[in-house]
Amino acid sequence: MTLSRRGLLGLAGAGVVVGTGAGIGIDHFAIAPATASGTSGAAAVYPFYGEHQSGITTAAQDRLHFASFDVDGSDRSELISLLKDWTAAAAQMTAGKTVGTGAVGGPLDAPADDTGEALDLPPSGLTITFGFGPSLFDGRFGLAGKRPTELIDLPHFAGDALEAALSGGDLCIQACSDDPQVAVHAIRNLSRIAFGRASIRWSQLGFGRTSSTTRDQVTPRNLFGFKDGTANVKAEDTTQVDEHVWVPRGDSASWMTGGSYLVARKIRMLIEPWDRTSLREQERVIGRNKGEGAPLSGGKEFTEPDFHAKALGSTLIDRDAHVRLAHPDQNKGALLLRRGYNFVDGNDDLGRLNAGLFFIAFQRDPASQFVRVQQSLAGHDALNEYIRHVGSGIFAVPPGAKPGSYVGAELFA
Amino acid sequence: MTLSRRGLLGLAGAGVVVGTGAGIGIDHFAIAPATASGTSGAAAVYPFYGEHQSGITTAAQDRLHFASFDVDGSDRSELISLLKDWTAAAAQMTAGKTVGTGAVGGPLDAPADDTGEALDLPPSGLTITFGFGPSLFDGRFGLAGKRPTELIDLPHFAGDALEAALSGGDLCIQACSDDPQVAVHAIRNLSRIAFGRASIRWSQLGFGRTSSTTRDQVTPRNLFGFKDGTANVKAEDTTQVDEHVWVPRGDSASWMTGGSYLVARKIRMLIEPWDRTSLREQERVIGRNKGEGAPLSGGKEFTEPDFHAKALGSTLIDRDAHVRLAHPDQNKGALLLRRGYNFVDGNDDLGRLNAGLFFIAFQRDPASQFVRVQQSLAGHDALNEYIRHVGSGIFAVPPGAKPGSYVGAELFA
Repeated sequence: MTLSRRGLLGLAGAGVVVGTGAGIGIDHFAIAPATASGTSGAAAVYPFYGEHQSGITTAAQDRLHFASFDVDGSDRSELISLLKDWTAAAAQMTAGKTVGTGAVGGPLDAPADDTGEALDLPPSGLTITFGFGPSLFDGRFGLAGKRPTELIDLPHFAGDALEAALSGGDLCIQACSDDPQVAVHAIRNLSRIAFGRASIRWSQLGFGRTSSTTRDQVTPRNLFGFKDGTANVKAEDTTQVDEHVWVPRGDSASWMTGGSYLVARKIRMLIEPWDRTSLREQERVIGRNKGEGAPLSGGKEFTEPDFHAKALGSTLIDRDAHVRLAHPDQNKGALLLRRGYNFVDGNDDLGRLNAGLFFIAFQRDPASQFVRVQQSLAGHDALNEYIRHVGSGIFAVPPGAKPGSYVGAELFA
Repeated sequence: MTLSRRGLLGLAGAGVVVGTGAGIGIDHFAIAPATASGTSGAAAVYPFYGEHQSGITTAAQDRLHFASFDVDGSDRSELISLLKDWTAAAAQMTAGKTVGTGAVGGPLDAPADDTGEALDLPPSGLTITFGFGPSLFDGRFGLAGKRPTELIDLPHFAGDALEAALSGGDLCIQACSDDPQVAVHAIRNLSRIAFGRASIRWSQLGFGRTSSTTRDQVTPRNLFGFKDGTANVKAEDTTQVDEHVWVPRGDSASWMTGGSYLVARKIRMLIEPWDRTSLREQERVIGRNKGEGAPLSGGKEFTEPDFHAKALGSTLIDRDAHVRLAHPDQNKGALLLRRGYNFVDGNDDLGRLNAGLFFIAFQRDPASQFVRVQQSLAGHDALNEYIRHVGSGIFAVPPGAKPGSYVGAELFA
């Protein structure tokens, strides 16, 4: 008796929309609207195999479970077998099926292949995206010569308060879905498959929106109450996506062609000090008004900010406003494809919410994209008084796996 | 300029369905289906004022943010003013509005009344439910003589591994919504209103399902992969609800008439040992099969378990199976109204998922309901090998506030 994990409601919802845009953490975040008309989010199915991995330009789902892993031991063939097993399981789960022989389809006297909590649930737009951290190329697996020059060690930024337990990792998995239980099921089963070969170093759950994603959806808000993602480019702008997101042929590592680089930052927001700040100060810090998200230089939400506009001798958008320092014009045109999620991890010992933004950005070249923008922000952003970067990771996200092959196969060729 | 938090989509979705049922933690959990036909979850609005508080028999929403508070100081009038402020804010937020003058409606040079992250979001079925812990009656507030005898201190149960930092509290707030951002916004703003008067002691986020709640929705699964809630009574059974949930006139504390008692237990599931257990053993432990949720005595999911049925001299449902020990027949008919949520709080230092069930149950008399069932389970349940109770709370949930009054007013009369 083999049950499919959940009834497949048809291959649908493959509308692919992307957001790219400048900004770290707060401004310019795209919840890219999409799904083919007539398709509910629950029924959406995104292909696992393809030229690129899903979960990058895929319309941002509502929920995130992200995990960073350390590989046990130093056996190259075991690492390859893990990636093959992960590929097979990810292809099944993203198609709305159970792992292996399923939760109840195997022998009664053995642990089942699938843990079962996503049985009966619709596919819910699950995507699973794999990445390789710098430490994977440290020589343990014979990969030292394969490290792309673009996969830099991130520099120390002013104000960084990084915790080792929330940073780094040999491998990462980003699971996104419109149902948290489906995303959690994916990370749990992949972690279980890795048992004895790799273990979770850190992980993060996040939420965005539960509203259905449509083109007329309003721009989502972060936990500072401001709209986040106004200035993002839409997925239809494939020229920008090709230029700023996908690794082209001819970059340093040929095995990364069609891949991208993922930077993750866990940004804790200091909720209570922010909440005690006046509305005027909050708007000055961001450089937009809170209600509509219009730049303080005037206009409406989607009006381009005018950084030169003045009143009474001062620029309407402050010199250290977040929207100014994050803007491509201030960063040699640097653009990122962002996919961040809000998080609340309970509260600390003083009763303060442990909350913030789990920032994820994809790009072709972190040094000239994330690092450039973050150096601009880290030094001067007025927002720094209210945020702390506590976790950090960078990962090379290889191209999509070919049917019959596995994710990252080109790296080991 | 006063913005309403989000456009009110009409008073709708007030279909009230309840689940009551025996069982602690794992079996018998009701996701009570409902909402008036033609209403989406996002548009659902539940009234704050009324005979009973909402969030008890209300059809279980998909998301939870629960917080326990300790009151600062010992000023009775400050406690009353806090409850009045909380009542006003809760009434606004559950109606889909901002707190006070809103996120952008007040003076520019003062902190805004509302933090803003739920602006633009639909009401999303938000309910806010308040409760009073035993410690509120310790004499600080002149309430020592008002403590209901039903509001017992929970006894120590065999196997309890409770942590003080996850247990107890003077006050509690349960916020449920179909959008996590709406639930988080509610707890954050209520916590902000309490600043200087009460502070969060512990808190918990949870998730259930993102599927729309309809009568033909399949029974949800917990993180052990089993269906949870099969045996629950439906809300239409008002006789059972009146008998087992609402405090009737004539019980020990007249101010609690129309209220209920909430027991919360944070139950960590030992995911990895469970996942290494054979399917046969998992089904023996639960007493149901995993695929369909049918009792091991035969039949289908909704067949009543036959605890006497035997094969080869042994009962088909084990003596220590969870379904047996949790069943009303084994507990003098004890029934509970359950509203639990799955949780994943990241991972521990060893890379194991910190996951489980945040159990919430409402009842008229904890001693003869929760305590009776939990004593049955704590001693013998085969499931105990795979779970740990790490947090615990009990709260008197007063009746609903009358318009113009505040929640708990009868206590201070």
